[in-house]
Amino acid sequence: MISPELLRRYPFFGTLSDEQLRNIAMIADEETYDEGKILLKEKTPADDLFLLIKGSVDLLFKVEEEYHPERHKEFLVGEINPGEIFGISALIEPHEYTSTVRTASPAQVIHIDGRALREHCETDPTLACHLYAQAARLALERLNATRVQLAAALA
Amino acid sequence: MISPELLRRYPFFGTLSDEQLRNIAMIADEETYDEGKILLKEKTPADDLFLLIKGSVDLLFKVEEEYHPERHKEFLVGEINPGEIFGISALIEPHEYTSTVRTASPAQVIHIDGRALREHCETDPTLACHLYAQAARLALERLNATRVQLAAALA
Repeated sequence: MISPELLRRYPFFGTLSDEQLRNIAMIADEETYDEGKILLKEKTPADDLFLLIKGSVDLLFKVEEEYHPERHKEFLVGEINPGEIFGISALIEPHEYTSTVRTASPAQVIHIDGRALREHCETDPTLACHLYAQAARLALERLNATRVQLAAALA
Repeated sequence: MISPELLRRYPFFGTLSDEQLRNIAMIADEETYDEGKILLKEKTPADDLFLLIKGSVDLLFKVEEEYHPERHKEFLVGEINPGEIFGISALIEPHEYTSTVRTASPAQVIHIDGRALREHCETDPTLACHLYAQAARLALERLNATRVQLAAALA
């Protein structure tokens, strides 16, 4: 469990009620990691939603050769800064991570149990609405940032 | 106005109630365009949500040179196929399109009035929840597809 007040500081959770923040705080934990730690892997079940408190993490995307899956390359497709959420697939069907996340420096991170969060969403439509809208906004922001990278790579 | 039954065929709207579909159908219109028509422009207010019925449209992303905004390049960052939604920024704050959409062939398109749709969302949390979740799912799918393109461009 973490302090609900900690969550309130971050825009993703900012407008939730005291009770909603308390419910989320109860299914959340804080951990600190060294540089180079893989926090989540693409194409695996999205079991946790993450909030980066300190440090930085890289979003990586792996491309396998069709007939040689053992030969793959990893590309940096984004970075997460303190205060940002990652692992939003925990909120969005089919609940499977779409990139790999690795700490780029020592990092302090909050994990929120995805299954428990989804159960809260089922019984609290206001919470669900808020979280889905935030997740959509975030996905669109990252889509935009990735398009900027793509355009730069194509230029 | 379009037929509510037309909307029901598409997964984005599939699980909505008869009344919700009717409400959306009442703020929707169908139009046909020639190839090469710009349907929406990036960085402009997201006034409409679109559903592609027939044909195909390209998602384009413009990059301006910092000190020479008149010199810009346009990059293809995605394609939309029949049955797919585009212009999801109409549902997601700050309600500004993130790419330009141009018909790549003659296209039959449904426009849904974004402002009216957002008003429905304000009074109908179930509708809002459903649409935000769908928008988030779609944004994440496009993010994934764009990462594939980015990785290919970097490879």
